[in-house]
Amino acid sequence: LYHERVVDHYNNPRNVGSFDKSDPTVGTGLVGAPACGDVMKLQIKIDEESGTIVDACFKTFGCGSAIASSSVVTEWVKGKQMEEVLTIKNTEIAKHLSLPPVKLHCSMLAEDAIKAAVKDYEAKH
Amino acid sequence: LYHERVVDHYNNPRNVGSFDKSDPTVGTGLVGAPACGDVMKLQIKIDEESGTIVDACFKTFGCGSAIASSSVVTEWVKGKQMEEVLTIKNTEIAKHLSLPPVKLHCSMLAEDAIKAAVKDYEAKH
Ligand code: FES
Repeated sequence: LYHERVVDHYNNPRNVGSFDKSDPTVGTGLVGAPACGDVMKLQIKIDEESGTIVDACFKTFGCGSAIASSSVVTEWVKGKQMEEVLTIKNTEIAKHLSLPPVKLHCSMLAEDAIKAAVKDYEAKH
Repeated sequence: LYHERVVDHYNNPRNVGSFDKSDPTVGTGLVGAPACGDVMKLQIKIDEESGTIVDACFKTFGCGSAIASSSVVTEWVKGKQMEEVLTIKNTEIAKHLSLPPVKLHCSMLAEDAIKAAVKDYEAKH
């Protein structure tokens, strides 16, 4: 039913946690999925000199596919520039995790959350 | 955002696991939520002489509200008669967990699953 990568990230989610929202080097994305009512918080920590994302974390009460999607995205963004991660598409995440069509909105949460986190960081500066 | 009971059951879900589906004393309910695509498996173990549910367990990749709903239901059904648990309504579960309206479909999964488990047990006999 679920791809082994979903099961893996569900059982051992990477980078679960929170950064201090008020830290000027932190960008916070808080987004919701209208389809199911789930909410996701994803945060990035930026090296201000280089604009590199040095750390990322998430929290969600969403489903296994949402957990896996955000877990994967927090791994993908580390070491990348902010502009780079804005090109991450939910379809890429869904493909990586072999999500069925009914679960696309879960990967959309992760795409929306990383975009919102970058936007929040930029709004602070 | 989430009631403390949801957080409690999400962090320490009760009765996660599986019984042997082919055991004649076991009833298995496997149901899906069209709203979000999540699936839940809930199983009961029956004392054949008295018709009492002596044990229950569940598994799901659903969201925090679905996990909490099924965790609560597995606690509620233990020690009850099969006919009794057929009267469990998702609105009771939702009220107990203070689920918001957008999360009612998650508690519906638990109601559907316990009904399906009883039906499966009955079909075996
Ligand atoms: S069903 Fe809500 S995030 Fe997946």
